[in-house]
Amino acid sequence: MRQSNLFTKTRKEAPKDEVSQNAQLLIRGGYIHKELAGVYDFLPLGLRVFKKIENIIREEMNALGGQEVLLSALQNPELWKTTDRWNDNKIENWFKTELKGGGELGLAFTHEEPITKMMTNHVTSYRDLPKYLYQFQPKFRNELRAKSGIMRGREFVMKDLYSFSRSEEELDTFYKEAGVAYENIFRRVGLGDVTYLTFASGGVFSRFSHEFQVISTAGEDTIYIDTEKKIAVNEEVLTEEVLEELSLERNKLVEAKAIEVGNIFKLGTKYADALGLTFKGEDGKESSVHMGSYGIGVGRLLGTIVEVLCDEKGIVWPESVAPFQVHIVDLSQGDEKIQALALDLYKDLEKAKTEVLLDDRDLRAGEKFAQSDLLGIPYRIVVGKHSTETDFEVVRRSDGLTRGVSREAIIKGEYGF
Amino acid sequence: MRQSNLFTKTRKEAPKDEVSQNAQLLIRGGYIHKELAGVYDFLPLGLRVFKKIENIIREEMNALGGQEVLLSALQNPELWKTTDRWNDNKIENWFKTELKGGGELGLAFTHEEPITKMMTNHVTSYRDLPKYLYQFQPKFRNELRAKSGIMRGREFVMKDLYSFSRSEEELDTFYKEAGVAYENIFRRVGLGDVTYLTFASGGVFSRFSHEFQVISTAGEDTIYIDTEKKIAVNEEVLTEEVLEELSLERNKLVEAKAIEVGNIFKLGTKYADALGLTFKGEDGKESSVHMGSYGIGVGRLLGTIVEVLCDEKGIVWPESVAPFQVHIVDLSQGDEKIQALALDLYKDLEKAKTEVLLDDRDLRAGEKFAQSDLLGIPYRIVVGKHSTETDFEVVRRSDGLTRGVSREAIIKGEYGF
Repeated sequence: MRQSNLFTKTRKEAPKDEVSQNAQLLIRGGYIHKELAGVYDFLPLGLRVFKKIENIIREEMNALGGQEVLLSALQNPELWKTTDRWNDNKIENWFKTELKGGGELGLAFTHEEPITKMMTNHVTSYRDLPKYLYQFQPKFRNELRAKSGIMRGREFVMKDLYSFSRSEEELDTFYKEAGVAYENIFRRVGLGDVTYLTFASGGVFSRFSHEFQVISTAGEDTIYIDTEKKIAVNEEVLTEEVLEELSLERNKLVEAKAIEVGNIFKLGTKYADALGLTFKGEDGKESSVHMGSYGIGVGRLLGTIVEVLCDEKGIVWPESVAPFQVHIVDLSQGDEKIQALALDLYKDLEKAKTEVLLDDRDLRAGEKFAQSDLLGIPYRIVVGKHSTETDFEVVRRSDGLTRGVSREAIIKGEYGF
Repeated sequence: MRQSNLFTKTRKEAPKDEVSQNAQLLIRGGYIHKELAGVYDFLPLGLRVFKKIENIIREEMNALGGQEVLLSALQNPELWKTTDRWNDNKIENWFKTELKGGGELGLAFTHEEPITKMMTNHVTSYRDLPKYLYQFQPKFRNELRAKSGIMRGREFVMKDLYSFSRSEEELDTFYKEAGVAYENIFRRVGLGDVTYLTFASGGVFSRFSHEFQVISTAGEDTIYIDTEKKIAVNEEVLTEEVLEELSLERNKLVEAKAIEVGNIFKLGTKYADALGLTFKGEDGKESSVHMGSYGIGVGRLLGTIVEVLCDEKGIVWPESVAPFQVHIVDLSQGDEKIQALALDLYKDLEKAKTEVLLDDRDLRAGEKFAQSDLLGIPYRIVVGKHSTETDFEVVRRSDGLTRGVSREAIIKGEYGF
């Protein structure tokens, strides 16, 4: 894409009411726009990153055998009364609204109730199970405060997967597989080294749930990490009893602030019991379905990547989620030969299916470099006085390393760093 | 995909409270699930069709130079007060909700206000224009009645595009291009022959807006068609004056019920004036941006395809939007040789990147055929006693024609009808 055609512009200052680093950088880069505290729009560059992350998650969900659906945001109160989750005293963060003809509706903050109810139309026998359903769907949460940028939104797209199994054992097996898929996801988006499987509160049906926590001073959670075992415990469940159960020693644990980027939760038969999701076993006996739920906030994950990997110059995208792989900075300043060099390279990279942004705007070099750093595209190719038809300077955004690279190697994506 | 793995099941009867033909068929086929009147979930087969339609629209929007964004549903009242569209007396179908800390929010039924406001951050000079932004985004409309299935939802995904131009002439030019893109879309999804460009009420800034109306007895609009000129007039603007203006003769017009599947609208400078979206011209003079808005409801279009092309046996998908191109019906009934034939063909079609659904379930032939007709996949390959390693029976869903086709031709997708 040519930057002269992109409608968004970068800006030097973030809006004053934006206190989070992730949203400040994303707004300055033109990735997102703030509508309200906790409510953001995705602009073209932001949406490109968003879809990259979404696709990585989708691939891992499909590999688990997940089938994609898309449920509604508007919710029928009757369903939620069945599980005692309609009352505002029970669930604090409902957004509710009213139908014109009368009657209240809710805006879904999660989907256990409707998906369980829907499944009663499709599950009758043990042959219909296990099944795994997931969606990317906008959730609404009426947060009292929303100061963490896109890491805690009042409206945000969540990937939520629900598993439907025949027994506790079958649920346990899938739960472990889902955990591995989650590790794959966080590794693939570039957070593998700083993400810890964290034991957290489990509710009625299991001792623990599991969170995936990313170390960051911007985090709202406090976790205690065993760096050797590569696991952590959320402070909310840190007791002597739990330490013993997990064979952890208190003095070996490192305290850290962390961002919860995913959680997986065994639900047992709670929702199936309440909403009548049963199946006939091989023995003819009717049993309740064992469920699990597995969430990742796509926008939160995007914000976490920004928060954790950025530097003083701006955003640093991992290649796997970057809006473009290559940023060509045309420093022709009116020199038509140099301009032609940049344009030819751009066209050849597009032909080679490389995602490339060409800064063809009439700006000073210093401004172009500062904006390029802010945008955080992995490789910058500078086309200026010293460029030739066969050689260009390539700068790697993550560490600022610079190399001369041949045109041929650039087209192949082999920069040699 | 193997049908034995698909979690949805077809059903013989639609729920009694569902009166629309499109939703009845889609629910019976397991394409959608009804949460509430006017509120539907998309299940795997339905989501596949939905995404096919979405991608056709996206391709046409990109070809127009559109840049994709994703705006929020939650809306700040202040923006909408600026244009006098917040008050319920002015806009009847708002869903409104309340922030926990106090203050009202709206759920967007359209996005002129927020997108215009957002653009004030990115447009300053004539060099920044024209620009075209679009999104696929869930809209909320508080309809008093919702009896048209997924053709009139209280919650539905809309493709809305907004154009930002420097002058009336520039807007006019794009408006015509957008009209052509819309014609491409309706032709590509299989509705070309029954869709009419229809003159409708234009509002303050132009004489007419234009609707794309699909002839259907399920339609809520009445239009008058000149079949030679291939244009129509909505009854709401049918006056002698308008007929004269469009050089139409009343006695040549055919009255028809129709479904509005798209509309395009010139907004002039109304929103730019109200929200301060101006640009500095080449002459240094500050002017307001000329806008247009261009909508297509993705779910409504999907429902319209079902409504218009279905027959007494069920849904009939055009190839361009079908969830799968080929439905292999395995009639092995325990015969392992026949089962292997079906499975081999399935695997080879998957290798050839053909989208194929294999009905490998243990059901009677009659049931399988009835369900296959209901699902409406374009080509059915029957694998039974009369199949050989080289020849299969292929049935075309649209007209029921049957042919013997060689395995080789099937793999190439050449059925010879």
